[in-house]
Amino acid sequence: MTISKTAIAGSGIIGSSWAIVYARSGLDVAIYDRNPDNRASLMARIGKALDESSALFAPGETTADVLARIVVHDNLEAALVGADFVHECIEEKLESKKTIFAEFDRLTGPETILATTTSSFPVSQFASDLGCRDRCIVVHPATPPHLLPVTEICAAPFTSPGVFDATFRFMERCGQTPVHIKKEIPSFVLNRMQAALVVEMFRCLNEDLISPADIDKIISQGFGLRWAFLGPFEGVDLNATGGIRQYLENFGFLFNNMANELGFADVVTPHSIDLLEDYTRTKIPLDSLGEKVSWRDQSIIALRLLKDERGTVDRA
Amino acid sequence: MTISKTAIAGSGIIGSSWAIVYARSGLDVAIYDRNPDNRASLMARIGKALDESSALFAPGETTADVLARIVVHDNLEAALVGADFVHECIEEKLESKKTIFAEFDRLTGPETILATTTSSFPVSQFASDLGCRDRCIVVHPATPPHLLPVTEICAAPFTSPGVFDATFRFMERCGQTPVHIKKEIPSFVLNRMQAALVVEMFRCLNEDLISPADIDKIISQGFGLRWAFLGPFEGVDLNATGGIRQYLENFGFLFNNMANELGFADVVTPHSIDLLEDYTRTKIPLDSLGEKVSWRDQSIIALRLLKDERGTVDRA
Repeated sequence: MTISKTAIAGSGIIGSSWAIVYARSGLDVAIYDRNPDNRASLMARIGKALDESSALFAPGETTADVLARIVVHDNLEAALVGADFVHECIEEKLESKKTIFAEFDRLTGPETILATTTSSFPVSQFASDLGCRDRCIVVHPATPPHLLPVTEICAAPFTSPGVFDATFRFMERCGQTPVHIKKEIPSFVLNRMQAALVVEMFRCLNEDLISPADIDKIISQGFGLRWAFLGPFEGVDLNATGGIRQYLENFGFLFNNMANELGFADVVTPHSIDLLEDYTRTKIPLDSLGEKVSWRDQSIIALRLLKDERGTVDRA
Repeated sequence: MTISKTAIAGSGIIGSSWAIVYARSGLDVAIYDRNPDNRASLMARIGKALDESSALFAPGETTADVLARIVVHDNLEAALVGADFVHECIEEKLESKKTIFAEFDRLTGPETILATTTSSFPVSQFASDLGCRDRCIVVHPATPPHLLPVTEICAAPFTSPGVFDATFRFMERCGQTPVHIKKEIPSFVLNRMQAALVVEMFRCLNEDLISPADIDKIISQGFGLRWAFLGPFEGVDLNATGGIRQYLENFGFLFNNMANELGFADVVTPHSIDLLEDYTRTKIPLDSLGEKVSWRDQSIIALRLLKDERGTVDRA
């Protein structure tokens, strides 16, 4: 199935950002909002965000070209006509999701993919009883998706594998980075990972170990420079000449100490080491790690120069 | 006190990186290592790292200029002669720290600052009984310090305030970003924050929620793009027009849910909100948040273009 027209329900920060993702990928976008004020401001909001992100357009495209693919609707049914991919981006309330997915069920054909941008609710919580349930899937981004590519894809047990595959490929085609959440859990993984870090930041703050400004600097003048290019696991892979297996066999106890302190069993286990060994050695062989270290270091230096160039808008 | 000569004990990854930080800042560096192989390879290792990081040199400087400030010693006493700032970078064993700080005590004058790059041991664990104890202080970086600026500074209760202040200013002068760890705790804050995130990554992996590759992408194609420029707290400040106070009053429960799930009390409290409000509103007034959002977004776009340019050395 080729997706050529998308429909979006809800034109807030996330809905309008998805409109940009789809329209700059060459797709037609029909965007519905029941709120007249939101509709009235929408094209100006999108136009501004497009102007500010034109560096991410396809070669030769202008804001006007992209904007011309977007149509605003005050009527859901009209917005859905001909849509191959529908993205629900309304308020984060379970009852509201139930209501609008029942509408989708009534108003869309059997080939239309029905995605939700929810950050909280697995599909099973609101679409289990609908005839369209095999076409329903979570497509939850980092905010905003037109700037941050990573996007969680989480199917319900009843979602059709074809819908999952088509959604995954569609996100890739749109320049996003889909990641597969394999089980339906509330709040998925992305926000859970962020919360784990932020909770620890709060704990250090509340214990008066360090000031808020200094906590932020540990990320923005430290790990953030590395994580801009490398996930933490592949980062660990560069910390020993024998790669992640060697590192974790020697120093995994440091993570286990932290896990135990948090009340968890050991997290670094023979099984998790095997998984990470498979992952990293598929990515890059051991004898090329030195090359990757140089690439990382050059990337960090380039980022530092970029940061110097960008300066700051803070007063202090 | 003006620091013009530094001495470093231990020429491993961290010791040689600190030598780069100091030498490229115009300081003389005497570096001691008891291991002949380490000494034999040292200047070549530093020369390579200098060539690769020459973009961070002061204007007009060359690798040869910087290298000319570094002298390798096979004798600790000779290395310490005339040093204003000594940085211990030897193996991470408590007994070894005790031994070498006793040597520092014997061999240095009353004005010399004695820093340790330890990632584990507060000064009180190994220097309490020494006459030099008021000059001892932890100066622990992200790895490697010549690329990642953030550096933890942790004084013992008996460290002189003058030594703390001089060390803090010295790090700033060297282009590092010092952060103040206010209490002596094992492993300090930087590694604790990293471990909190990595432990959660392992938990998601071990629960088979998501693949290792996809976990890494959540950072490298998601939060990492933001954290390269903004600490998470100042990032949260941009999530509501009323800033971090408004955001946390509305959505702080999300972090508290995570904290409770981890077995902690609420972390978002009136007190922590006050601290974060003071921090962020000193940084930037509410009516300039829109400007900062634009700056963040433009920064992320510039980073995405940089990443496209840098490509990857991974095979898969």
